[in-house]
Amino acid sequence: MKRIGIVGGTGYTGAELIRLALTHGEFEVACVTSRGDAGTPVTKVWPSFAGFLDLDFTEPDPGRLAECDLVFFATPNGTAMTAAPELLARGVRIIDLSADFRLKSIPSWEHWYGMKHASPALVAEAVYGLPELNREAITGARLVANPGCYPTATTLGLIPLLEAGIVEPRTLIADAKSGVSGAGRKASLAHLYGEVAENFHAYAVDGHRHYPEIVQTLNAVSAEATDITFVPHLLPMFRGIHVTLYARLRERVADLQALYGARYDGHPFVRIEEANSHPDTRAVYGTNLCRISVHQVNENQLVVLSVIDNLTKGAAGQAVQNANLMFGFPETQGLTAPPMAP
Amino acid sequence: MKRIGIVGGTGYTGAELIRLALTHGEFEVACVTSRGDAGTPVTKVWPSFAGFLDLDFTEPDPGRLAECDLVFFATPNGTAMTAAPELLARGVRIIDLSADFRLKSIPSWEHWYGMKHASPALVAEAVYGLPELNREAITGARLVANPGCYPTATTLGLIPLLEAGIVEPRTLIADAKSGVSGAGRKASLAHLYGEVAENFHAYAVDGHRHYPEIVQTLNAVSAEATDITFVPHLLPMFRGIHVTLYARLRERVADLQALYGARYDGHPFVRIEEANSHPDTRAVYGTNLCRISVHQVNENQLVVLSVIDNLTKGAAGQAVQNANLMFGFPETQGLTAPPMAP
Amino acid sequence: MKRIGIVGGTGYTGAELIRLALTHGEFEVACVTSRGDAGTPVTKVWPSFAGFLDLDFTEPDPGRLAECDLVFFATPNGTAMTAAPELLARGVRIIDLSADFRLKSIPSWEHWYGMKHASPALVAEAVYGLPELNREAITGARLVANPGCYPTATTLGLIPLLEAGIVEPRTLIADAKSGVSGAGRKASLAHLYGEVAENFHAYAVDGHRHYPEIVQTLNAVSAEATDITFVPHLLPMFRGIHVTLYARLRERVADLQALYGARYDGHPFVRIEEANSHPDTRAVYGTNLCRISVHQVNENQLVVLSVIDNLTKGAAGQAVQNANLMFGFPETQGLTAPPMAP
Amino acid sequence: MKRIGIVGGTGYTGAELIRLALTHGEFEVACVTSRGDAGTPVTKVWPSFAGFLDLDFTEPDPGRLAECDLVFFATPNGTAMTAAPELLARGVRIIDLSADFRLKSIPSWEHWYGMKHASPALVAEAVYGLPELNREAITGARLVANPGCYPTATTLGLIPLLEAGIVEPRTLIADAKSGVSGAGRKASLAHLYGEVAENFHAYAVDGHRHYPEIVQTLNAVSAEATDITFVPHLLPMFRGIHVTLYARLRERVADLQALYGARYDGHPFVRIEEANSHPDTRAVYGTNLCRISVHQVNENQLVVLSVIDNLTKGAAGQAVQNANLMFGFPETQGLTAPPMAP
Repeated sequence: MKRIGIVGGTGYTGAELIRLALTHGEFEVACVTSRGDAGTPVTKVWPSFAGFLDLDFTEPDPGRLAECDLVFFATPNGTAMTAAPELLARGVRIIDLSADFRLKSIPSWEHWYGMKHASPALVAEAVYGLPELNREAITGARLVANPGCYPTATTLGLIPLLEAGIVEPRTLIADAKSGVSGAGRKASLAHLYGEVAENFHAYAVDGHRHYPEIVQTLNAVSAEATDITFVPHLLPMFRGIHVTLYARLRERVADLQALYGARYDGHPFVRIEEANSHPDTRAVYGTNLCRISVHQVNENQLVVLSVIDNLTKGAAGQAVQNANLMFGFPETQGLTAPPMAP
Repeated sequence: MKRIGIVGGTGYTGAELIRLALTHGEFEVACVTSRGDAGTPVTKVWPSFAGFLDLDFTEPDPGRLAECDLVFFATPNGTAMTAAPELLARGVRIIDLSADFRLKSIPSWEHWYGMKHASPALVAEAVYGLPELNREAITGARLVANPGCYPTATTLGLIPLLEAGIVEPRTLIADAKSGVSGAGRKASLAHLYGEVAENFHAYAVDGHRHYPEIVQTLNAVSAEATDITFVPHLLPMFRGIHVTLYARLRERVADLQALYGARYDGHPFVRIEEANSHPDTRAVYGTNLCRISVHQVNENQLVVLSVIDNLTKGAAGQAVQNANLMFGFPETQGLTAPPMAP
Repeated sequence: MKRIGIVGGTGYTGAELIRLALTHGEFEVACVTSRGDAGTPVTKVWPSFAGFLDLDFTEPDPGRLAECDLVFFATPNGTAMTAAPELLARGVRIIDLSADFRLKSIPSWEHWYGMKHASPALVAEAVYGLPELNREAITGARLVANPGCYPTATTLGLIPLLEAGIVEPRTLIADAKSGVSGAGRKASLAHLYGEVAENFHAYAVDGHRHYPEIVQTLNAVSAEATDITFVPHLLPMFRGIHVTLYARLRERVADLQALYGARYDGHPFVRIEEANSHPDTRAVYGTNLCRISVHQVNENQLVVLSVIDNLTKGAAGQAVQNANLMFGFPETQGLTAPPMAP
Repeated sequence: MKRIGIVGGTGYTGAELIRLALTHGEFEVACVTSRGDAGTPVTKVWPSFAGFLDLDFTEPDPGRLAECDLVFFATPNGTAMTAAPELLARGVRIIDLSADFRLKSIPSWEHWYGMKHASPALVAEAVYGLPELNREAITGARLVANPGCYPTATTLGLIPLLEAGIVEPRTLIADAKSGVSGAGRKASLAHLYGEVAENFHAYAVDGHRHYPEIVQTLNAVSAEATDITFVPHLLPMFRGIHVTLYARLRERVADLQALYGARYDGHPFVRIEEANSHPDTRAVYGTNLCRISVHQVNENQLVVLSVIDNLTKGAAGQAVQNANLMFGFPETQGLTAPPMAP
């Protein structure tokens, strides 16, 4: 059993980490922190855990966190980069679910996130926690930057094409749709039931923080520089991301199914669905799966559908997958339950 | 490992049985039947199980079913009562999730269900599968009648009061609200998204089949004859039942919390919440829990809130709980995951 | 054309007033106030009015409001009672959609609303704006207290029974369910999409501010003192209230349909539906209707279903109905569009 | 007053026609047909119209329909093309909301709709009822083919670009998302609440019937042949279409806002929103508006957002707009109410 800590336990990602930890089998939830709710039971904020978890929120006290084997940061951007050095120095491993360590370019990070980076030295060390790309590096890492939700779904859908060099790399399009849980749990007018339900719209068409993260990964797997038009939309639902990807083929490909199948062979959480199928978000609900289907709609045009649960493969589930790799547990430990569906 | 069969695998209850069986640990899903879809993969109907279950639907063939240790009937009313005798004769245990064996009075059953009963002799043998009432009898049963969803939530909320004889037993009221999954998965105009979403109404105010089932159980635990006004409503959501119960106290009660706590002591799936709390359906989502809170709003008036997931404690989860008892597994085997919440 | 002002234009009730005013035909929206958004276009907060209303929010300046013929207060409790005296003195009529003038008992109001009343003298003058009870008084009123949403649906369903004296008046039950718009538009965790959707629960079982308002009206029409158990619940939807009323008959009634029909004859917004029907909230969506159906489920037990749109008949629509009466317009002016359904 | 008939009154489009006709002012609903429900009140199927419309469904009898000034066909494909000749011969005007007269190429129509066309001669006469393109021709038409919902939103968003010849015409992309009402009201498993809510997926990626209709219109306004990749998705909501359009600029454009504004000047239902805005479907709910916003995300890439209510501008509202033109009423008659929002 490993002792884990969760910094930031009042958000949706924190709750999903708790949910997954409770059935993991090798994790003991040693502490869950919340500045605002320290001293009150976790079940005051999350009554659904009543009967499953008997723990009070604590202050994010480094001394207590240092008693953990691994600490997950499910915090707003800017928190983990400040707290990480001390914890690492005390021998604690860290998986940061915020954006603090995702971008290798400090200037780019500071531009997109609007603050000065507190630990630029650690950025170089941090491993980008997309196991389907960096499994080996994650295994030995002290500090993992857990990918964003949109970048996970988008890059998993495009990596096989860019690695093979068969699509135009600078006119990629990702039309992305996310459930509202991606916006986190904060009191905001924009995410009230009355604003979200029976409604749909795009947002941030002119620039979203996940854009540089996506391009960083695409460039890492492409021989040529890439660019992508990334348009996120808000779905009237809670969990789930569906990215519809558009790419233009440069050359005939004998068998796209085979290309994708081979790329993700041995990666248990990426599932290439039948040709011409339409995976729905329900089919990944609460799981760490990424379901992908590939459509060639005419001689040059590819449409790739990539579907994840943003709270699981897009956040807490991928974090557990990374933790499994870091501890040497089976990669799927605690992540094998089928979707809660219907 | 026990081999289980599921007769009627294309409904929501069948799917929930599959979902629970996949993580149970002691169940092997040996066959899932569907007359209409025999020969096609289960994942054609339930794509969310793709990657989790590799099985084709079969005809409900008695020979094949006889190879199972236990068969769950997740079928329309009228099927199990016809198929049960042969399977029992071949030594197969049965849990019937339909209504065929729930009512001990054959005339009442035939009145409410509008058909002739095919196996009246088995009705007497069948054990009503509410473990919080009949745990011992279930343990030795060959044939279990799994309770209805509304009756489960309603009777669990009232049993302590009626056993104690402290409320007027003939003016009980159950104002019940259910998610639409309770109506099953059939092509019907009434349950289209466009009819259910952003809408709410009562139905069957003048008589619902769960009324006689509720009264049968209430009478079984009450020294005096009982009656209840039962009004069901359709919620614009998928899973969950919330029953608001109204009862009039006959006498002062020192401690209602203690009364309820003592009644369900040792019953792992009934959880008495804090006094004056308001359990929500999300807090039981996908679990076998019944969460109950008790409110005394004035000298005579009690309000009891009783909440379950209609597909789990109200159907498939309770069936697994019953199967655990019948096989001698721990009562909670395969039913310990926390709710999928938020 | 009458010049109307709306104080508090950033809430759902304010928006509904704007929507209704835009098609009223005799109303000119002269000003819409918002302290927080003064100076910005109304369409910044309500983009759906872009192309329909070209107006900036203003401060709630008494001078400007005094140029209106009538001012609607769609404000939090405590605002109208402070602003009313000056406006009335300047000859402006007022309809207060908050609770400031609803309760005739000042001590009761101060108990339930937790503040000192600023204009107790006006409370006596204010007319409770339920036209089906007080049409004549409203016609001549300067100051109308627009009823609460739950009280509107609840009392309209019970008035015929209590006026006729045919039910036990002290064991009434109102099991009420409301869409989330009843909670208003404020940044609160409890009303995020992620908390409301696919979820259901009761709240305030041990005391809700609409309880004294309901009893005040019931007492006004009953020869004997009344009491009611009032249990509100939150529905996973936006608009609509459904109250399920339980009353015990004292005597045989020849024809309940006739009793209700006669009571509301000449009241265009109350519609008695067919016996044993189940009106749904969709059938009143966006309208000023109250649809009622009456069920006698056994010798003594009545179940009455009463359905309104909480933003319309439960707030802004009823306010327009009251304004029509005050100005001598036809009572249904601007309120004749059918529901937005499906 | 004009007498109108609605053939096919049990679908969502038929109901929307009734709703709009009830407040139109110049329309009398003379008959509403339904083969299955002839003889029963319209309010049996649509209880929300109880109190607003007192009419029984009739058989689609040509004699009775011939007494109308105009007949709307809100029927499955294949019905209008059979019935049209007789009605036209009797002097009745027709607006067909199905697809029977939309495609000018008979072979293409027969390919996509899988049946033989019954009235090829009338196809040539029929005017494609997109008033923003064909207003003059509609004014004099006997037979109008009302456009599909996706084609309306898609082509209105692209017409200014193609008329100006400033984008590559063969690599257009329309990523379209529709509420479930677009699928009509029929008893189908795929559109049950339990399948649609909290779920999202693409469909028909490899070919949708609206594709040839879109290309036909785009070709009509473009100097060069066009092509488009059209990917529809199903939203977990009832009303609304949001199309996200991607086009590649060939040349610098001084002012896209001006280009769009000029194109739709004088067209009351197309509203060009502020640059870089994100119109939501709620802002057109129940209205005949198309709201468009234009984004240039880099030197070559345009993103255009086009939003309609699929039942109104995408079907019944556009039909009323066409009827207004045919009868010489103001184009906006009966279509001026603001959206039902929030």
